[in-house]
Amino acid sequence: MIANTPQPPYYAVIFTSLRTEGDNGYGAMSVEMEELARQQPGFLGVEAAREGLGITISYWDSTEAIKNWKANARHLFAQQQGRQKWYTHYKTRICKVERDYEF
Amino acid sequence: MIANTPQPPYYAVIFTSLRTEGDNGYGAMSVEMEELARQQPGFLGVEAAREGLGITISYWDSTEAIKNWKANARHLFAQQQGRQKWYTHYKTRICKVERDYEF
Repeated sequence: MIANTPQPPYYAVIFTSLRTEGDNGYGAMSVEMEELARQQPGFLGVEAAREGLGITISYWDSTEAIKNWKANARHLFAQQQGRQKWYTHYKTRICKVERDYEF
Repeated sequence: MIANTPQPPYYAVIFTSLRTEGDNGYGAMSVEMEELARQQPGFLGVEAAREGLGITISYWDSTEAIKNWKANARHLFAQQQGRQKWYTHYKTRICKVERDYEF
């Protein structure tokens, strides 16, 4: 469940969100988007947890891979649905992972 | 609950963890460490969620602020306790936030 990412540098997209009430198709789309993300060039891994606040972090080998995923047609539809139905507020941060260590 | 961070660039520490069974003093130390982190120079915010996997992201204005927090005496004790009692596995990633946007 902790993403097995390569040696830095690589990139992270931190997506922090607050949900609306009810599912409204969110669960199914969430599963679909994770499966689709895993198929994209440059995808390195994903980590997610929700406890009121939701945090999803996807890892990528380049900023170009992140731009391509953001522009994916089905993902664009999901982003639009997210703003219309699923999220009251979200923030996306594009980051360069410079160092990491683990236990 | 979504951290109100300034315009990039700034820094993020992504701490992803898997817990041992039971509390063993974790809850109290977790509260203490968040309060202490908020008092450190350069601290910008924190976001956290646990759902099996735990994700805590703290935001900082510089890598020096991150180094100082990592070397804080009480935090060093908490890190040691974490390896001995609270975590079966963790990964820490030091990141530069290059862009962000929100809804």
